[in-house]
Amino acid sequence: MPPESLLYTGSEAQPTKVDAVQYDDDEFSFRPNIDPSVAYRTLKSDKVNWIAVSGFRDIENIEQLGADFGIHPLLMEDIFNVQHLPKVEDMEDYLFITLKSLIWDTQKKQIDAEQISLLLGKNFLISFSENDTPLFEPVIERLKTTKTRARSRKEDYLSYLLLDRIVDNYYVILDQLDDQTDELEDLLLNKPTDEIAQRILALKKQLVILRRTIYPLKEEIRGIVHDELPLINSFTRQYLNDIYDHLIHIIQTIDNFREMIAAMMDLLMANNANRTNSIMKTLTLISSIFIPLTFLAGVYGMNFRYMPELEWHYGYFVLIGIFMLIAGGMYYYMKKKKWF
Amino acid sequence: MPPESLLYTGSEAQPTKVDAVQYDDDEFSFRPNIDPSVAYRTLKSDKVNWIAVSGFRDIENIEQLGADFGIHPLLMEDIFNVQHLPKVEDMEDYLFITLKSLIWDTQKKQIDAEQISLLLGKNFLISFSENDTPLFEPVIERLKTTKTRARSRKEDYLSYLLLDRIVDNYYVILDQLDDQTDELEDLLLNKPTDEIAQRILALKKQLVILRRTIYPLKEEIRGIVHDELPLINSFTRQYLNDIYDHLIHIIQTIDNFREMIAAMMDLLMANNANRTNSIMKTLTLISSIFIPLTFLAGVYGMNFRYMPELEWHYGYFVLIGIFMLIAGGMYYYMKKKKWF
Amino acid sequence: MPPESLLYTGSEAQPTKVDAVQYDDDEFSFRPNIDPSVAYRTLKSDKVNWIAVSGFRDIENIEQLGADFGIHPLLMEDIFNVQHLPKVEDMEDYLFITLKSLIWDTQKKQIDAEQISLLLGKNFLISFSENDTPLFEPVIERLKTTKTRARSRKEDYLSYLLLDRIVDNYYVILDQLDDQTDELEDLLLNKPTDEIAQRILALKKQLVILRRTIYPLKEEIRGIVHDELPLINSFTRQYLNDIYDHLIHIIQTIDNFREMIAAMMDLLMANNANRTNSIMKTLTLISSIFIPLTFLAGVYGMNFRYMPELEWHYGYFVLIGIFMLIAGGMYYYMKKKKWF
Amino acid sequence: MPPESLLYTGSEAQPTKVDAVQYDDDEFSFRPNIDPSVAYRTLKSDKVNWIAVSGFRDIENIEQLGADFGIHPLLMEDIFNVQHLPKVEDMEDYLFITLKSLIWDTQKKQIDAEQISLLLGKNFLISFSENDTPLFEPVIERLKTTKTRARSRKEDYLSYLLLDRIVDNYYVILDQLDDQTDELEDLLLNKPTDEIAQRILALKKQLVILRRTIYPLKEEIRGIVHDELPLINSFTRQYLNDIYDHLIHIIQTIDNFREMIAAMMDLLMANNANRTNSIMKTLTLISSIFIPLTFLAGVYGMNFRYMPELEWHYGYFVLIGIFMLIAGGMYYYMKKKKWF
Amino acid sequence: MPPESLLYTGSEAQPTKVDAVQYDDDEFSFRPNIDPSVAYRTLKSDKVNWIAVSGFRDIENIEQLGADFGIHPLLMEDIFNVQHLPKVEDMEDYLFITLKSLIWDTQKKQIDAEQISLLLGKNFLISFSENDTPLFEPVIERLKTTKTRARSRKEDYLSYLLLDRIVDNYYVILDQLDDQTDELEDLLLNKPTDEIAQRILALKKQLVILRRTIYPLKEEIRGIVHDELPLINSFTRQYLNDIYDHLIHIIQTIDNFREMIAAMMDLLMANNANRTNSIMKTLTLISSIFIPLTFLAGVYGMNFRYMPELEWHYGYFVLIGIFMLIAGGMYYYMKKKKWF
Repeated sequence: MPPESLLYTGSEAQPTKVDAVQYDDDEFSFRPNIDPSVAYRTLKSDKVNWIAVSGFRDIENIEQLGADFGIHPLLMEDIFNVQHLPKVEDMEDYLFITLKSLIWDTQKKQIDAEQISLLLGKNFLISFSENDTPLFEPVIERLKTTKTRARSRKEDYLSYLLLDRIVDNYYVILDQLDDQTDELEDLLLNKPTDEIAQRILALKKQLVILRRTIYPLKEEIRGIVHDELPLINSFTRQYLNDIYDHLIHIIQTIDNFREMIAAMMDLLMANNANRTNSIMKTLTLISSIFIPLTFLAGVYGMNFRYMPELEWHYGYFVLIGIFMLIAGGMYYYMKKKKWF
Repeated sequence: MPPESLLYTGSEAQPTKVDAVQYDDDEFSFRPNIDPSVAYRTLKSDKVNWIAVSGFRDIENIEQLGADFGIHPLLMEDIFNVQHLPKVEDMEDYLFITLKSLIWDTQKKQIDAEQISLLLGKNFLISFSENDTPLFEPVIERLKTTKTRARSRKEDYLSYLLLDRIVDNYYVILDQLDDQTDELEDLLLNKPTDEIAQRILALKKQLVILRRTIYPLKEEIRGIVHDELPLINSFTRQYLNDIYDHLIHIIQTIDNFREMIAAMMDLLMANNANRTNSIMKTLTLISSIFIPLTFLAGVYGMNFRYMPELEWHYGYFVLIGIFMLIAGGMYYYMKKKKWF
Repeated sequence: MPPESLLYTGSEAQPTKVDAVQYDDDEFSFRPNIDPSVAYRTLKSDKVNWIAVSGFRDIENIEQLGADFGIHPLLMEDIFNVQHLPKVEDMEDYLFITLKSLIWDTQKKQIDAEQISLLLGKNFLISFSENDTPLFEPVIERLKTTKTRARSRKEDYLSYLLLDRIVDNYYVILDQLDDQTDELEDLLLNKPTDEIAQRILALKKQLVILRRTIYPLKEEIRGIVHDELPLINSFTRQYLNDIYDHLIHIIQTIDNFREMIAAMMDLLMANNANRTNSIMKTLTLISSIFIPLTFLAGVYGMNFRYMPELEWHYGYFVLIGIFMLIAGGMYYYMKKKKWF
Repeated sequence: MPPESLLYTGSEAQPTKVDAVQYDDDEFSFRPNIDPSVAYRTLKSDKVNWIAVSGFRDIENIEQLGADFGIHPLLMEDIFNVQHLPKVEDMEDYLFITLKSLIWDTQKKQIDAEQISLLLGKNFLISFSENDTPLFEPVIERLKTTKTRARSRKEDYLSYLLLDRIVDNYYVILDQLDDQTDELEDLLLNKPTDEIAQRILALKKQLVILRRTIYPLKEEIRGIVHDELPLINSFTRQYLNDIYDHLIHIIQTIDNFREMIAAMMDLLMANNANRTNSIMKTLTLISSIFIPLTFLAGVYGMNFRYMPELEWHYGYFVLIGIFMLIAGGMYYYMKKKKWF
Repeated sequence: MPPESLLYTGSEAQPTKVDAVQYDDDEFSFRPNIDPSVAYRTLKSDKVNWIAVSGFRDIENIEQLGADFGIHPLLMEDIFNVQHLPKVEDMEDYLFITLKSLIWDTQKKQIDAEQISLLLGKNFLISFSENDTPLFEPVIERLKTTKTRARSRKEDYLSYLLLDRIVDNYYVILDQLDDQTDELEDLLLNKPTDEIAQRILALKKQLVILRRTIYPLKEEIRGIVHDELPLINSFTRQYLNDIYDHLIHIIQTIDNFREMIAAMMDLLMANNANRTNSIMKTLTLISSIFIPLTFLAGVYGMNFRYMPELEWHYGYFVLIGIFMLIAGGMYYYMKKKKWF
């Protein structure tokens, strides 16, 4: 396949849907399901224009929309390549941001990732999302119902609001992983089972995914904040810096999880070794006491013609006394050696 | 929840209390429990003004106080978000510092963290603390009673005094962890129990918390010292550099703890393995000696009609001699192999 | 051997073959098997010239060809030294790139590497490959059949196309290693065998090879993109940046593999320990129940003259009851201790 | 305690003693036990002045001496705070260096640290040491007896001579640790005992202390060499660079020790596992041979009325043959499986 | 000992020998065993002058030679301090390079290091080597017999030739270590013995030595290449860059070895655990089958007066059937649990 052609690398493309949101201090309009080919013409220079594209089934139309807005073909490829790492690319005329929205799949107990790309131009913002998720609905609600700080700001602040939604969701994932870690720790301390090691492995896998998604994003957001890009004014930069702080915090929390998981694995190994020792001690205790006794009993079960002890009247009782002495001595010896 | 609204993220908000401290070389006044709404008007330009806010129950009033002093809404959010990492933010008109005060909870044997934020303006210092802690009382006492170097200095030196109090407390935590480490090491060497691994894990957790709290603070304090901020004069910078040195020392001590804990975990594993071997040796020793003997005794307990040895007069005594020879041989063999 | 002489360090040199490709917007010509000594004279200043050299058996002719094009002797050495790390060298008049093409050997289940060197001059591109691989055929096909974007671009874009082919193949390797990792993980969880550790080692070896090949390449490509070399125009640089993104992604994926493999090794160790414990438990359970019973049976098999219990009419049945009590007690005790 | 007050943080303060050394090309004078309060007045501008302060019992006098020389109060604190990390502080008028002198306590087999601080002013050098150590005696001897290169140099070269003495002693520590490592390695390979793990832990602890002491010193010395401080001329800087090289070498040697210790710990674990296996094999060998035989012997010890084998004339001898066959078979099987 | 005095820190000083090599395009002369005191006077400004000093027994003469050429005393110390790390020092008038020549001691199976120092002045090159090694003979041969590129170059190129010889030898060491690693891996997979862990430790030690020697050299050579020193012209710099590439490659190969060795250690641990399990399984299998049977046999060996089963005619045969049932059941149960 030639490098020029676009390809959606996700599992199943959803139907394409294009919504247009426009607002300023006074007005707000939401037009769902507009024709992709007219999207560019709907822009109004005195308003904040947000084109929300979701579902990547109709690649040709989206490609055309991208061409209308003058998006570089390589970036179009990145939008459809859902394995792409989070990235911010400053193309002078516009700023391209691609990142992952993460949702916790409560059934499979794993992270589901959806790729979101934002294209911030001089008077428009285009968002591309794999599915028609309800992720940005709270943003629309807020813009619609209240005369908030947001309405009087430009597209760069809108980008912040969308990014903030996505990053807030990362905390939901962290909470889930925190619960899992606590549960595992509790299991480990109170009722260790053989599946703990497998569950720790599964948890570690989720952490690897999470870190892979968030670490590059953090670096890229730092770039936006530090490079003083003309498309983002200093007011919004302050807010993006706040997102950067959140991402640092998330990364640090992930690293703490990793350290705790390593410590749990160590504890698991130590517990296993303790368990082996405890089992071995029981076996050794019982064997050490009874094997010598069984030998003695065997001796007096022999059929030699001349075995004087067998003839003694109290021989049997003397031997029982010897049995008790040996058992007690063994027990005392092991007690003294602090075996149990 | 819209990003604009303020939320206290701690477990239980304490009642809000605002105290005002004012002093210069000649005078010192401490007014407890002033009305938050008049705090800004109490500032006197020829004195050092310190507004101490504690307890975050009455968020609206604190928000109003913040607005009076012109604090950025995002910083107000950070003040109430007790999960926030330590941070220094230079806002040109004022310098914002948020960090954790750490106290050792002797009962739960763990670290309790309280978030403290300092806002250093041109002629005022505001401190925000989650609880009405006695943490800063020694500072007030010192300002009140003696005509110290501190009285003739400005708000930046006062910030140093407060930071110094907080950082001094970190050493208390280190001492506690040091005691714990020594105790664990002693247990490990002298009376190893199964709980050591769990206690090492618990200790490691505290170290992770400590490092997470102090490492970013160190970096941020370094920023203050190196960036030559106009709000902090070179005299105070010298003292902040001293705090920076302390933080480096603390971080290094934490890292040494971590290394020692890893070494202790290794020792624990080695001890466990030694213990397994020592138990196994006992079992093997006893089994190796008595199992063959028991077999021999079993042989002469058989009821075959024709077993010539049984008829010998000294057969029994010969066999006892053989028993002793076998047992002695086995013992000698294992002794030679340095099994015990 | 003097440093000046050229030496092919691969296992077996293939016959040398030189092809010449020339094209512009209007024309395309492919001349296979030209005489190496005339290669330089075939260059046309108004076309894109690509000399593809494959097979290193005829070192003298290739050396002469290099001299015709003014290639530095040390670079000629690098071309034939297949152990050389990936490298980009800016020689002002031309740009030298050496890297590895990786192919998955499905039989040996390991990576096969072939060294490819590119020499990008002002109006020519020379490629040197160890074997006459079909690697670049799709590029030739594309240049031949369609009037693509590629035809109107210069040699720098052609270099990009060749590099892109090579890097795309790395993903094939990643897929193979991904399959292997999944298979091992599946084996580990479902039917652990003793060979898993060996297979993990083998997999790790492949990852080490992969990382060694790709990591320096990434750094070198970053150099091309950042240093704004005059031989590569900004249009192509955009595309090389895309390759750089791919390489970052590959490196990150390799690092994730490494982390997962470490976690699998941990799981393997934990599983082994569990397995030991489970085997030990069976042994201890059976021994703990039967060894005391066997002792008791031995006691009543003794031949003492006076053993009152033997005379009791129901002695045997009482003893069987005692056997059952002991066995039941042992079983209950171990059940309570959650041994199985 | 107010931050202003000075406190010696070591275990027991030694009596304070102040010596004055003065020399130039022609003359040398050593005045022991001078009055601290006159130290400043003894300086002669045409000579090299060295004030050696040892023992921190008389803090007030030392504080006064510091004030006479204009030393910053924070540095005075550092002098008495023996937990302070090595540090170099350039105060424009003087250069402050604090570091540790390390001595190997041959009885406790551990490192003893003594804090040494040097204050290099424009025409004086003050050294502060916790104890009246013989550390600097060779320097005095050398200055006294010979007309060496040292006599014609200034205070900066004298600082070098003192630092060089301290750093040379680090090599003594390294040699001790080297001996310990070799001894442990020898023990590990030849007569492994249970205490090896503990001794490795103890050795690691010493390495942690050593690294903590030397690593920051290296960084600080690098600062002196690179920052081209006016107090140190280029001639002396060359020599300080030599010390810097030594410190790099020491750090690298410490890191090699750490690596070797980690490898020894691995070997210890592997040896333990081998040992377990070897013990287990003995047990299994003996059990596997004798347990089946014991069973067989038990069978023919049963008292069934009708057991035809018992009646055979050679039954007993046939069974002994069977015993031998089983034992031989078991032995052969395990030999073939390469168990011993 | 005063810092000024020179001391050879190697084990046994070899007799001192000074050779003089002089050449230009037309002539070549080799004068062995010249008097050290005349070395400086033999320099000819129109030729390449190489003074080769080997053997450090006659320190005074070498010191005098160094003084003749104006070498800094600290560098003279470095020449004789064979523990010194590789270093390049630019002294403006001359360039000082000290490094290690490594040779594989095939008997002791370890690396032998010899310190080589090069001093590149404006029209001379002095080499100092601990022993009279044949290391540089091929360079002399080449200069003598052929009119190579080397003859028309200056001392800087000659330094390159010598460095190249030394670095080429590093590859010989790598090959030896590669052989060792392969042999160990083979042993590990096919016939694991208890000595493997020890041999891995020994191999690791060699790698630590190798890395310690080569890593700083790489950094220092990088310095020469990047700093554009006036003593080395751009032609030679190209060649030194080639050496730098080799050193990067060697370092990377060492790091790969380290990783493979860590993986082998993991495999060893996993194999040990597998082995333990396999031994345990045999023991458990045999014990689990025969211990219950032995008990049963013991029961019917009891001498109770009234044991009805003993009287049954086919009691014995029924019991043998029960024995078989129990043994078969146990075997089947363990087979189903996939124990073997």
